[in-house]
Amino acid sequence: MAMKYLTSKTAAALDQELMSTGAFSIDQLMELAGLSVSQAVFKLHPPQKGNRVLVACGPGNNGGDGLVAARHLWHYGYKPTMYFPKQTKNELYARLRQQLNDLKIPFTEDFQSSITQTDYVVDAIFGFSFSGEVREPFPAVIQALRDSKVPVLAVDAPSSWNIEDGPPSDGPGKGYNPDALISLTAPKPLVKWFKGRHFVGGRFLSEDMAKKYDLDMPPYQGIDQVVEMPVGEERL
Amino acid sequence: MAMKYLTSKTAAALDQELMSTGAFSIDQLMELAGLSVSQAVFKLHPPQKGNRVLVACGPGNNGGDGLVAARHLWHYGYKPTMYFPKQTKNELYARLRQQLNDLKIPFTEDFQSSITQTDYVVDAIFGFSFSGEVREPFPAVIQALRDSKVPVLAVDAPSSWNIEDGPPSDGPGKGYNPDALISLTAPKPLVKWFKGRHFVGGRFLSEDMAKKYDLDMPPYQGIDQVVEMPVGEERL
Repeated sequence: MAMKYLTSKTAAALDQELMSTGAFSIDQLMELAGLSVSQAVFKLHPPQKGNRVLVACGPGNNGGDGLVAARHLWHYGYKPTMYFPKQTKNELYARLRQQLNDLKIPFTEDFQSSITQTDYVVDAIFGFSFSGEVREPFPAVIQALRDSKVPVLAVDAPSSWNIEDGPPSDGPGKGYNPDALISLTAPKPLVKWFKGRHFVGGRFLSEDMAKKYDLDMPPYQGIDQVVEMPVGEERL
Repeated sequence: MAMKYLTSKTAAALDQELMSTGAFSIDQLMELAGLSVSQAVFKLHPPQKGNRVLVACGPGNNGGDGLVAARHLWHYGYKPTMYFPKQTKNELYARLRQQLNDLKIPFTEDFQSSITQTDYVVDAIFGFSFSGEVREPFPAVIQALRDSKVPVLAVDAPSSWNIEDGPPSDGPGKGYNPDALISLTAPKPLVKWFKGRHFVGGRFLSEDMAKKYDLDMPPYQGIDQVVEMPVGEERL
């Protein structure tokens, strides 16, 4: 059975529906998304394997998921460091930042140095609404992600990948293949090109919504907020 | 080492501080509190032991935690039924209800019949701000909780217990001793009288806040949002 996907457009529509008729607040959805990201990190790289995690956050909701994930990672015993160069005045993001400040989680402005001093990286730069070109200061960040030997978990999309068409054929993201990916709510078409470990998270989809958007309910187990999906040919 | 407690007053102050200088929204805190409640239910009574759960919700934040918990329980494979007789017009509660409606989770008005047709009960009627007397329609509900053989998990307090002084010496809650209790953020003084299994949940306390309110950081393990505490003499 082929995997079913949310395109950039349908992912935006589903998010909008969750927050209108679905009655979720963005605080709620982001909390559950970020929690899922943190659980995927724990499964992929438990703190005993090295507890320094560098979390790169973009200016939009993908970055917000990263801010939430970092808070949970701290509670699990990790030592997160944040890279969040495009801080907007958005009230939600200001609050999520304050929550990290209260845990004394440091923010760095130097991604290139920080990536040499971490055990794991979360790429929460661009998500399903990304298209077009990578703007400053992110080209060098994505090149560093591509060139580093440190394992990376990408949130919803490897940053710079096209949501429908996958890896870019030129630009800073050419050749960027993170070790792992967590798809939020449902996979995006780019997973067809993804070779690493793949998780789905964001356990809040109703059966009616899954049906309406022609999605499979991910096979979550027990209380897990993430589920690992088969990769490569297994999934076809 | 004696367990440290949050009184009714300090619990209210801590909640207020989390939402002001701590920058948490009530959506976030309630989501994490309700998630903790759902994880405690899963540990105490996994769905294989009987997946019908009756969730009794009061009119305040304790009831809100129950509404969130029920949604997560549905995702874990339970079949929740809600008893929520005092529905306010509060926008947050209306949204949490809508989320349950979208999962087709039924609401009952007849607690006494429903408790004969369930495998487990969550008592989310009154929390740390309860004092004084039990108002209608809850006296008969608390008597049913007391008299039923179905196991009960109480959220933050067995409803009708005094937060500082424990079990009431008369009224509908006299003799009401739930099987289990989950303390949110930190235990309240009433746990000194509690004989069942005891969990702590609500994994969002910073070390600074714990210090300020003279609390121990609960010994959470891994990614768990709850931790079981020693009971009786072990804890002194």
